[in-house]
Amino acid sequence: MDRAAAAPPVSIDTINPKVLKCQYAVRGAIVSHAQRLQQELQTSQGSLPFDEILYCNIGNPQSLGQQPITFFREVLALCDHPALLGKSNIDALFSKDAIGRAQKILDLIPGRATGAYSHSQGIKGLRDAIAAGIAIRDGFPANADDIFLTDGASPGVHMMMQLLIRSENDGILCPIPQYPLYSASIALHGGSLVPYYLDEATGWGLEISDVKKQLEDAQSKGITVRALVVINPGNPTGQVLAEENQKKIVEFCKNEGLVLLADEVYQENVYVDNKKFNSFKKIARSMGYGEEDLYLVSFQSISKGYHGECGKRGGYMEVTGFSAEVREQFYKVASVNLCSNISGQIIASLVMNPPKVGDESYKSFIAEKNGILSSLARRAKALEDAFNSLEGVTCNKAEGAMYLFPRLHLPQKAIDAAKAVIAAPDTLYARRLLDATGIVVVPGSGFGQVPGTWHVRCTILPQEDKIPAIISRLKAFHEAFMDEFRD
Amino acid sequence: MDRAAAAPPVSIDTINPKVLKCQYAVRGAIVSHAQRLQQELQTSQGSLPFDEILYCNIGNPQSLGQQPITFFREVLALCDHPALLGKSNIDALFSKDAIGRAQKILDLIPGRATGAYSHSQGIKGLRDAIAAGIAIRDGFPANADDIFLTDGASPGVHMMMQLLIRSENDGILCPIPQYPLYSASIALHGGSLVPYYLDEATGWGLEISDVKKQLEDAQSKGITVRALVVINPGNPTGQVLAEENQKKIVEFCKNEGLVLLADEVYQENVYVDNKKFNSFKKIARSMGYGEEDLYLVSFQSISKGYHGECGKRGGYMEVTGFSAEVREQFYKVASVNLCSNISGQIIASLVMNPPKVGDESYKSFIAEKNGILSSLARRAKALEDAFNSLEGVTCNKAEGAMYLFPRLHLPQKAIDAAKAVIAAPDTLYARRLLDATGIVVVPGSGFGQVPGTWHVRCTILPQEDKIPAIISRLKAFHEAFMDEFRD
Repeated sequence: MDRAAAAPPVSIDTINPKVLKCQYAVRGAIVSHAQRLQQELQTSQGSLPFDEILYCNIGNPQSLGQQPITFFREVLALCDHPALLGKSNIDALFSKDAIGRAQKILDLIPGRATGAYSHSQGIKGLRDAIAAGIAIRDGFPANADDIFLTDGASPGVHMMMQLLIRSENDGILCPIPQYPLYSASIALHGGSLVPYYLDEATGWGLEISDVKKQLEDAQSKGITVRALVVINPGNPTGQVLAEENQKKIVEFCKNEGLVLLADEVYQENVYVDNKKFNSFKKIARSMGYGEEDLYLVSFQSISKGYHGECGKRGGYMEVTGFSAEVREQFYKVASVNLCSNISGQIIASLVMNPPKVGDESYKSFIAEKNGILSSLARRAKALEDAFNSLEGVTCNKAEGAMYLFPRLHLPQKAIDAAKAVIAAPDTLYARRLLDATGIVVVPGSGFGQVPGTWHVRCTILPQEDKIPAIISRLKAFHEAFMDEFRD
Repeated sequence: MDRAAAAPPVSIDTINPKVLKCQYAVRGAIVSHAQRLQQELQTSQGSLPFDEILYCNIGNPQSLGQQPITFFREVLALCDHPALLGKSNIDALFSKDAIGRAQKILDLIPGRATGAYSHSQGIKGLRDAIAAGIAIRDGFPANADDIFLTDGASPGVHMMMQLLIRSENDGILCPIPQYPLYSASIALHGGSLVPYYLDEATGWGLEISDVKKQLEDAQSKGITVRALVVINPGNPTGQVLAEENQKKIVEFCKNEGLVLLADEVYQENVYVDNKKFNSFKKIARSMGYGEEDLYLVSFQSISKGYHGECGKRGGYMEVTGFSAEVREQFYKVASVNLCSNISGQIIASLVMNPPKVGDESYKSFIAEKNGILSSLARRAKALEDAFNSLEGVTCNKAEGAMYLFPRLHLPQKAIDAAKAVIAAPDTLYARRLLDATGIVVVPGSGFGQVPGTWHVRCTILPQEDKIPAIISRLKAFHEAFMDEFRD
């Protein structure tokens, strides 16, 4: 290459080292390998011991056959092509309430222009609708000015990290195991991840005394801890926090002056009767704490829930407790990217305001919604039982979210074999599982785990008719793996 | 507030100072003031000397009444709600080629799932279509693996800044005046903006000798300059670069080892017969330079052109010349945000592959496209003439893009009046213009300008029937302004 020496060549030694440090296992090496295998399957059928790749690495329901909610897509199609609303035979193609809702949404958009940049926080009328939905959910008021519509939850999380992290001396308390968006975002913004451990023995319980210990430990090392991340329902761990536990977390953040970053994207995904989702805002307000008592950011996404609209990239954050001056800075950062996509904004408003009793679509909407959620609950149970039936595997219940995070008590020989190929033992396991069965899971090391323990994260999302076959492939693989490595 | 002292309160003194430093005038104080005035208009009609706010601050065509391209929206609606494709009377509602295109696009998407996360670079089949469109445009091959689909051009620019900037000792050469996304992104990522000046006297010409001088000046201060930003057609300046000029830029970046960041989002917006858009990739390849000779990133957006689909947030970057190792890092950063929105991806594929001769929609598509582009050319000329007719105002031609950037030769009294209210003189002018006429323009200080010169940026986007009234309001305001301040 005959480039002059004035600028260093762009190489991994000269790019931003924060980028190098960032890791994102959910789309990491195992997934790249799976994509190569998928191409192999397409070009030479029968060359592998399976005939399809099953992506259980990522919460991406529609990629595995889940159908979108009809009402949402009807409204979206009408908003994308409003000329349809003027056609004569439109009633035969769309439900009456979808037509009404699309008209109402278009009326909320200045100039009915779904192709225009909106206000940088999102279209005001849609934020009003979302605030109304939050108020109904929580029983406490919500304010459209506190809503920032985002392209999924991830950009919102990045924005908060960007605002809070000044240097590596600023720390963010994160659960371990955690969803690696958090570790990746903290690394990209140059901060320090301060871990607190969820207790696997008590169903991934969150002990506030442990959080406090970790906080003090970080402070003693000169770290200014600025925020606490809580993922509820848990990812990858699937637990749903009890109200008492949430109260302690609120109290703790209030007393320590920490921003509570509440990842509540799985709020619709609760599968057990004895647990219920409560937003942290509801908990804080029910304790009598208002705006001035707690910095609180709640993240919501259209990618999860029963609708799983991942590809549409929509979501919001509800931001409360900050001064007007700081909020102006939030707005400024949002404005540099102009606005989130309008289709995602529209679906976010539908998620928070679905059809109601009496609407033409209500019955079919509820049937679709309940069908998906009850099927997810059955799939979670079936896969949980399957993992628990495997030699040396223990698996907590998925009370909520979309994942199981079984622990692999691996034989020493397997650990040694991993060491020999310079891989973590759970990475070896995940790689072997993929090569033998086409099932893609993410090694626990991508999420963090108590040192010396090994896990994988597996989504509960394959369609129900495929679950029995998946379970038998899994069992056969595991037996063979254990036969090979049993001490 | 009774928060404990452990963490500092979240205030503008304790948030990331890079955020504070970042400025984005396109949605800055003037625009916030305009939004307040708009609310005032809604609540008390007749309270202001105008009855609507005209947002000429931002290239947002559909917010000012431009209609979306019918074919694009037909395809989008069908992809949003594929169930429509199975209905019997669908031919009456959609053009035949829109139906065919939607079916083709759905076939390209694994599982036809427009609600699934895609590959982090975007759906492979859509990238193939975009690469084919680039190859037709340039006459040189393009590769789907080089395409990263993005939510508009802005996230792509941020990603490149994030990758290249390690500290304030890394510099990015930017034109002055520039689109403030660049200064904002460099500030957010903690780098140094190294300015080079466009020459207003020669129609905003780019002199490579000046760029070289600025580069050497920065190097002498210890700055490692890593990239050169070129915006062609220019924003806010509207010039279209000549081929000879582009060749010099390519040669310069090659010799200096700089990444050429080519903002080519206005590639469809050229309004003069004697100029033509050439992509920098075409220029480089026509000079015989291949992958190994030049780091080149081309940004494209669905928000501009004749379609102006700002709210859909789509675009791509074509990334060439980097090593496989570095490209893996690009992919990793893209994967942390999972993928760009699928609706935006679909429209990006349509923009790069519009209807062709013989397609049912071709004639109406071309009529819509040419109607918009020829109207934009007329509007540019009318507003340019209007600015040039004002006392003490000179305005270069908008050869391309969507803006005029007239220079205001302000009387000393006006400059003093601005100083008295601690504002830049062009900010005073823009504020007075807004208060008197409802026309929103952005002060030149938001883009950078030669010290001691003053400008405003005004889009050419108001609908044609409104232009005469805008011009008379502008003239009346300017006369009164000059009468008040004339020396």
